Amino acid sequence: MLPFSRVSIIGLGLIGSSIAHAVRERMPTVRLTGHDASAEVRAIADALELVDDVADTPGAAVTDADLVILCVPVCAMGAVAAEIAADLPAEAIVSDVGSCKAEVAAALAEALPGANVIPAHPVAGTERSGPEAGFASLFAGRWCIVTPPEGADPIAAERVAEFWRRLGSQVETMAPDHHDRVLAVTSHLPHLIAYTIVGTASDLEEVTSSEVIKFSAGGFRDFTRIAASDPTMWRDVFLSNKEAVLEMLQRFSEDLSQLQRAIRWGDGDALFEHFTKTRAIRRSIVEQGQDDAAPDFGRRH
Amino acid sequence: MLPFSRVSIIGLGLIGSSIAHAVRERMPTVRLTGHDASAEVRAIADALELVDDVADTPGAAVTDADLVILCVPVCAMGAVAAEIAADLPAEAIVSDVGSCKAEVAAALAEALPGANVIPAHPVAGTERSGPEAGFASLFAGRWCIVTPPEGADPIAAERVAEFWRRLGSQVETMAPDHHDRVLAVTSHLPHLIAYTIVGTASDLEEVTSSEVIKFSAGGFRDFTRIAASDPTMWRDVFLSNKEAVLEMLQRFSEDLSQLQRAIRWGDGDALFEHFTKTRAIRRSIVEQGQDDAAPDFGRRH
Repeated sequence: MLPFSRVSIIGLGLIGSSIAHAVRERMPTVRLTGHDASAEVRAIADALELVDDVADTPGAAVTDADLVILCVPVCAMGAVAAEIAADLPAEAIVSDVGSCKAEVAAALAEALPGANVIPAHPVAGTERSGPEAGFASLFAGRWCIVTPPEGADPIAAERVAEFWRRLGSQVETMAPDHHDRVLAVTSHLPHLIAYTIVGTASDLEEVTSSEVIKFSAGGFRDFTRIAASDPTMWRDVFLSNKEAVLEMLQRFSEDLSQLQRAIRWGDGDALFEHFTKTRAIRRSIVEQGQDDAAPDFGRRH
Repeated sequence: MLPFSRVSIIGLGLIGSSIAHAVRERMPTVRLTGHDASAEVRAIADALELVDDVADTPGAAVTDADLVILCVPVCAMGAVAAEIAADLPAEAIVSDVGSCKAEVAAALAEALPGANVIPAHPVAGTERSGPEAGFASLFAGRWCIVTPPEGADPIAAERVAEFWRRLGSQVETMAPDHHDRVLAVTSHLPHLIAYTIVGTASDLEEVTSSEVIKFSAGGFRDFTRIAASDPTMWRDVFLSNKEAVLEMLQRFSEDLSQLQRAIRWGDGDALFEHFTKTRAIRRSIVEQGQDDAAPDFGRRH
């Protein structure tokens, strides 16, 4: 039996449209409605037939839903939740896909008092944005973290977990605060650093942008992928997960200073030791199917 | 007409073995000899038939060569060059593939007075190391930077350039110092940062390594690829290109502090503006064929 039969997706960007594709492929009997704040995105969603019905307002998209998934930037979650509050069926479960969970859980609880809120975060994505960027297999083999607030209905949490399993994900349950610390290091800090170095490289005087682009295959290009991610989404992530990001950044800066010192003093042994221990993590990530085992990510040569 | 007919490869790791494969495929009449300091690597090279003759000493590998390519870590270049000095034919050209050029050019000139030395750097690689990691198409479509020292024979420089074009590369000529500054930002700094963040993530107390690995698809895994690169090679790069790396690192740290400040003060506009300008560079890298245009690097989903 399917965990839900009428799913409403609010926000039809990369993640929202990928959920639509994945539901169509893996739970074809589910009725899908959707909404996006942008009229242009709604028109594209209509043309692509992403969902059965594209509604003009968030409220109209949820009137008949048993699962509502908010797929909007994290700082917009509270406002969108307030917009659906009046039309939300009493038995519907509200979830989301935001990359920060503590602030989002609080915003949803405040906007939807008494509603059945089960936040979640599929740890998957690409550097593309928008309704045309989605694809059905985005979540396959990836993890989805479900973060039920204290006192949440365990049956509702299990239905959300089962929904993500049906889309091909593995599910882990976590407290919102712990989620935010884990993601600060596995996702938010990497994005911040990638955005930084790409900015640094584009501001140089004596090395031209054209040289940076030409010779990017030496390592730089790996950073540009995640630095091409959606700016609104990432602005919101850093505003919402400030404490954990700043703490991880502090640790990173200390570690970088240590390597900087080793370079300045020509301490080859310290460098070698550090560079050796980082190989094991890569091996584990590949072994656990979280990255492509082919060299160079399987890039074409 | 081929630029060289008898090529000797000293050092049969990822780059040396890839040169061997590429020469076999694209210039099959060239006679290849090779040597590696490791008896184990020599045995593997023999078994794989990477070259026509695996010599037991560097000297024996070069006696008959018209091109000798040193494919060893940059701090070993001088010592290896000294080992071939007595056996090097007068008309042979000596080149290398090191990632730093000023120090290497000086070391080769000192070890091989009077020899025809044309250093070069193919900007290509994968995270794999060793004689089994090489493949013929590694250099296809990538850039190779040729850095002839002042007063070098222009005909010799052109022959080395033509050799790399035959292997599928595009060639650019640059002064060694300028090369080292360009690569500091496009390759050395990215590697240093990747090594740092992977180390930071593995040292956390409250987030487990198993969590870091599981949820790495949020961005972290992109950094682990280059942080799995050969530790000896990278130790040498940082020891050899110290000044330029430290300068780029200083700029990066300043830029990171600025973003850190924007996060601390909740300056969403500053974050958004920064995150927007970094997308253009990614677009150019893809347009110029230096990375895969498919989302997520074309990783399988």
